[in-house]
Amino acid sequence: MKISMEETLAALQSAQNLILTAHVNPDGDALGSVLGLAHYLLGEGKQVRLLIDDDIPARYAILPGYEMFQKPVEGEQYQADLLVVLDASLDRTGKVHEAVQAPVLNIDHHPTNDGRADKLYLDGKAAATAEIIFSLLELAKAKFTLPMASALYTGIATDSGFFKFSNTTPYTMRAAARLLEVGVQPSEISEALEVRPYSHVKGLADALQNIEVWHNGRAAGVFLSYEQMQVIEATDSLIDMLRIIEGVEVAVVLKYKEEAQARVSMRSKGVDVSTVAAKFGGGGHVRAAGCGIEKPYEEAKALLKAAIDEALNPTDILDEAEAVLRASSAQDPTQPSAV
Amino acid sequence: MKISMEETLAALQSAQNLILTAHVNPDGDALGSVLGLAHYLLGEGKQVRLLIDDDIPARYAILPGYEMFQKPVEGEQYQADLLVVLDASLDRTGKVHEAVQAPVLNIDHHPTNDGRADKLYLDGKAAATAEIIFSLLELAKAKFTLPMASALYTGIATDSGFFKFSNTTPYTMRAAARLLEVGVQPSEISEALEVRPYSHVKGLADALQNIEVWHNGRAAGVFLSYEQMQVIEATDSLIDMLRIIEGVEVAVVLKYKEEAQARVSMRSKGVDVSTVAAKFGGGGHVRAAGCGIEKPYEEAKALLKAAIDEALNPTDILDEAEAVLRASSAQDPTQPSAV
Repeated sequence: MKISMEETLAALQSAQNLILTAHVNPDGDALGSVLGLAHYLLGEGKQVRLLIDDDIPARYAILPGYEMFQKPVEGEQYQADLLVVLDASLDRTGKVHEAVQAPVLNIDHHPTNDGRADKLYLDGKAAATAEIIFSLLELAKAKFTLPMASALYTGIATDSGFFKFSNTTPYTMRAAARLLEVGVQPSEISEALEVRPYSHVKGLADALQNIEVWHNGRAAGVFLSYEQMQVIEATDSLIDMLRIIEGVEVAVVLKYKEEAQARVSMRSKGVDVSTVAAKFGGGGHVRAAGCGIEKPYEEAKALLKAAIDEALNPTDILDEAEAVLRASSAQDPTQPSAV
Repeated sequence: MKISMEETLAALQSAQNLILTAHVNPDGDALGSVLGLAHYLLGEGKQVRLLIDDDIPARYAILPGYEMFQKPVEGEQYQADLLVVLDASLDRTGKVHEAVQAPVLNIDHHPTNDGRADKLYLDGKAAATAEIIFSLLELAKAKFTLPMASALYTGIATDSGFFKFSNTTPYTMRAAARLLEVGVQPSEISEALEVRPYSHVKGLADALQNIEVWHNGRAAGVFLSYEQMQVIEATDSLIDMLRIIEGVEVAVVLKYKEEAQARVSMRSKGVDVSTVAAKFGGGGHVRAAGCGIEKPYEEAKALLKAAIDEALNPTDILDEAEAVLRASSAQDPTQPSAV
């Protein structure tokens, strides 16, 4: 059932013993939302437990309260007045789903939320769940402490791509301004979050040795076979390095983590790559899409490049079709000649 | 002579024919400041000429008014009521310095400004000169148009590292919020500014094949000989890729653009690299410094690595010195034995 922000706040205030959780494979917004809310609730004298069914990446250790995160223990049952699920639907919380006996309050900004929580506050326009928590704590007239502010800033900054993504609104910037006033140092947080293992940087360099640029420089891709994937660590930042190449409208990474199963990621500057992904049973958005292709390397690569060529070329194809028509009407003796 | 913001505005308003300029090798703040102010002045019915003594990188073509930039023509003299120098001292404007006959109004945020302009508005705390222009136009009660807002946003965003650098203040974020309200799309501007030639991305990948990690993983460097530099394009983003490696406290790039002259850039997470640079006659800040070394490759590299080792190791060195002292006082028969 969808509820208002006032009702969300009331639900939090009426509970004394709360468990907070977020999705597996937690990102800055999942962790920042949980910690930001946790610090507030602890300040209100509540009992709070933070359960996330995954490892928490070490780079988030910069956030005060990082040590409070626990993994649910196999087979254990946890009691609480309220289970607060942040930044995801309940079904994305791993074992927490079954391990906690409590009514569910869900706070999320993903329009894809399954809507099945007992109580749901959903704002699909918010840049981050942490932005919603910020609004909620403003409504509660909370005094923002540095631990709260650092956590919420991290959530907002990471989910908005440090204020670069199109979900960034004037409100997003003003919320961040308010959190900086509390004493958050953006340079410290961004530096901590940017840290990557040596293997990632080396893997990026190795993967970039395999750039293919085609279609008059309008497409760029890295296609990594299963054999290459045994020695190259292909990271998320790879496609971003292709995306920024001058003239490139479609960037693609194809890689075989398993032997006969290519995983494909695509980014575009306007060309609809979701139609390319759909051809292989995948999906996504106009500018970011993905799919799997169960074919051997050369075949998968050829099919994918052809599909991208087609997406890049609707006008050319029309021009060609028109040229064929004109040629045929001019030369076909069975057609009446042009007046 | 230093003047107030009110006096700065009055100086602009009393001129009818203005030339606007900024430093050579112009960045987003130089160009954004000039264009933001130019659009305002044009709207006030002034005659405005934009003179920059350098090529304007094509990625800034996203800014409305980009086509207004001119290079001063060799030998030509330009007349104006006022020469407005933005984001630098006059001596960094190349030929504009000699080519324009007019009193100088200088608006800058670099604490290193030489202070020699006829009139100078300097705010060393501002994240960008564009942030100062924003304040100035607020004072003027200007109606922000989209061309003005796009230019000023670009200046603020680029000079604050998209709100990641330590110069980012709550005011910086609120200024950006105001500009987004006018209709600036941060994703469009950031995407346009991130574009790099293929050779840059390829050069980065090639350069990263030469990463050396030493001092127990606390230092990472790429050292490119003159021969390597003939085939590798080493870009500014190289040192950023070293800086983010887990455990790395000092990142360094050494490269020979000329045969016997190494250029060195260093970044640190706290260790004072300006003392390392100073050993070779260079300078900078604690966390970012640079120098030149006129030595052959192997010698320059060895000297530099040793200097970095020393900067990383003040405690170890003290410990060693102490150990030596203790050992000598214990073993030297000419010393009195410890009581």
